[in-house]
Amino acid sequence: MRRVYFDHIAATPLQPEALQAMFPFLKERFGNAQSLHSDGQAVLVAVDEARQQVARLINAPESEVYFTSSGSESNNFAIKGLALANRNRGSHLVLSAVEHLSVLNSAKSLEKLGITSTLVRVDKTGMLHPEDVEKAITKETTLVSVMLANSEVGTIEPVSEIAKICKTRNVLFHTDAVAAVGNIPVDVRTLGVDALSLAGDQFYGPKGSAALFLKKGVRILPFIDGGVQEGGRRGGTENVAGIVGLGKAAEIAQVKMAERSKKAKILRDRLIDQLPNTVEHVMLTGHREARLPHHASFCIEFIEGEGMLLSLDMKGIAASSGSACTSKALKASHVLLAMGLDHATAQGSLVFSLIEDNTAEDIGYLLEALPPIIERLRKMSPLYTKYLEKKGK
Amino acid sequence: MRRVYFDHIAATPLQPEALQAMFPFLKERFGNAQSLHSDGQAVLVAVDEARQQVARLINAPESEVYFTSSGSESNNFAIKGLALANRNRGSHLVLSAVEHLSVLNSAKSLEKLGITSTLVRVDKTGMLHPEDVEKAITKETTLVSVMLANSEVGTIEPVSEIAKICKTRNVLFHTDAVAAVGNIPVDVRTLGVDALSLAGDQFYGPKGSAALFLKKGVRILPFIDGGVQEGGRRGGTENVAGIVGLGKAAEIAQVKMAERSKKAKILRDRLIDQLPNTVEHVMLTGHREARLPHHASFCIEFIEGEGMLLSLDMKGIAASSGSACTSKALKASHVLLAMGLDHATAQGSLVFSLIEDNTAEDIGYLLEALPPIIERLRKMSPLYTKYLEKKGK
Repeated sequence: MRRVYFDHIAATPLQPEALQAMFPFLKERFGNAQSLHSDGQAVLVAVDEARQQVARLINAPESEVYFTSSGSESNNFAIKGLALANRNRGSHLVLSAVEHLSVLNSAKSLEKLGITSTLVRVDKTGMLHPEDVEKAITKETTLVSVMLANSEVGTIEPVSEIAKICKTRNVLFHTDAVAAVGNIPVDVRTLGVDALSLAGDQFYGPKGSAALFLKKGVRILPFIDGGVQEGGRRGGTENVAGIVGLGKAAEIAQVKMAERSKKAKILRDRLIDQLPNTVEHVMLTGHREARLPHHASFCIEFIEGEGMLLSLDMKGIAASSGSACTSKALKASHVLLAMGLDHATAQGSLVFSLIEDNTAEDIGYLLEALPPIIERLRKMSPLYTKYLEKKGK
Repeated sequence: MRRVYFDHIAATPLQPEALQAMFPFLKERFGNAQSLHSDGQAVLVAVDEARQQVARLINAPESEVYFTSSGSESNNFAIKGLALANRNRGSHLVLSAVEHLSVLNSAKSLEKLGITSTLVRVDKTGMLHPEDVEKAITKETTLVSVMLANSEVGTIEPVSEIAKICKTRNVLFHTDAVAAVGNIPVDVRTLGVDALSLAGDQFYGPKGSAALFLKKGVRILPFIDGGVQEGGRRGGTENVAGIVGLGKAAEIAQVKMAERSKKAKILRDRLIDQLPNTVEHVMLTGHREARLPHHASFCIEFIEGEGMLLSLDMKGIAASSGSACTSKALKASHVLLAMGLDHATAQGSLVFSLIEDNTAEDIGYLLEALPPIIERLRKMSPLYTKYLEKKGK
């Protein structure tokens, strides 16, 4: 059967060149990067080269890049580490209501330690308004965290404007750029952020390898306490092969991003334009223009996303209903609810996120396969029956 | 030049079979384990198989194994997660003075949150006495953490006796078994522990893949807050290839451990018995009998470890002066100081930890290479000159 993968936001395939670069570190170059002998030193050189590659992708000095094990770890590191290290200045955070769970739940954990948070609302496109952030900042606020792009609805947030406000108000600013880095141009200087999270598995790097950018001079507590690794700020033996793969993927992303994104956008636009014509009661979620180039997301009314995913899977199509981190929670997405959708509509969430291998034929195949699935599932949907009755049929 | 690797405690080579098992997950099986489509489900099956393999190695139910990114993360997870989740019962920890920095520094971080620690002393062999742990437990104590084996001096601690005391006193017990698991038999039931840390890079698994055993019913806070992964207790996209490699290495370790350890012990004993005969002022550190089978550690008086490591490296020999996590801190090891050694002697620390490929020839080569290095360095050592003058030569 034809297999078509439209779940970039859950995981991307590993770039063959990245895997190639990882090989020596999965084989003969197995030393610990902190060892003083040459088996260790050779490995440390590779870790530092990867640090340069990642730094270049986001236009940061390499000394401001810290390796972690996932985007979630980077977000925990930033939120907890910054909030706790700057506690003497205040104990209040400002977050958007559509942040990833690793940000929202880090803030919840901090509540037990007396650090409170304000969630800023978004509009119906998932867009945050900078003036709402400004209003939420109090004298107690030490940190604002707003994601660069939302993986569930694709919306790109006005991060540089928010960063400017934070600078004026003397508040630290972190952005979860996990869904963005490697897919759209990200420059930490232009953005003006103090901290930024990124993850390799969002741009054809390996799973288990991610990073936190942290501006020099910003006070943070280590998240993983331990030894001398990552300047004493993140303990634990380095995942050398993963780091090298992340570096290589970053290097390639820098070169290929424009081309990848142009191609994905054409295919994605076809999906966004045509799907609502092939079947009724389908609405685009997220912002139509300010969105990730490889991202198309919808709410299909009267049906639950899970049923559609399983039916699509039987046709060989891999998609998602939102973040893989919440796929099995079976709750309506907090992102869609924050955008003002009701619970029932939010349950019909469907996200197609393209990888570089996707073709026009893949989109054609999806546009053929999906409408009959929707129609079949609607026939079994009590919500749809009720709707039809109400409509007077 | 001949290369001989005696730095098992810093990192082991990756088992070829483990790498083989990882391949599909670095290539075509790149799905996210939490995705609902079959690309994700196939990956989840592999993660769960690895969980079984790791569980079997320590005789635990698979539902009590949580994957992490390093032994240091497992230790942070255990110490912080258990201390904070059980704070309503008390706010005091008991640790040995020779714990890994990821344990000691986690406890230090908790001090800022009002949770204090008592460090229990060890004897000159690095051995903890259970009665000293018992004396340190107060009504406020919620958690005791004592490592199973010390990577710097090889000493194996009386963990099951300490676990019994903790049970009687209704205190949780965690053991950092990172240096032990995969190298000596470890059975969480026999040991009677509530939590146990292990890491793949200590038994021929990949770096960046580790686990925490946590007994059912024990309350812990998540360390990486996030999504539904690891039963909601450890967020972040799973490092699938790393987890699969860890599982395979665990499976192989279970089969090969006895043979590996028998072989290593013979070679190691030769080193322990002969090195002090070839050169003066060399003392074994750690316990002679209760020690890791692949582990030989010494203090070479009047010289600094770093000079010896660099000289050995020039002869193609990789060794360490202690934990790789502290290699660049250039301070005397807290482990050796806790054992009562003075600063100068502790600086002469030298650890040889064998991997399964090491041969009798490797030991012979080391026994030939090391004495001249020691003699040359001593000639340049002011401490040695002073010693000779004092001796009246």
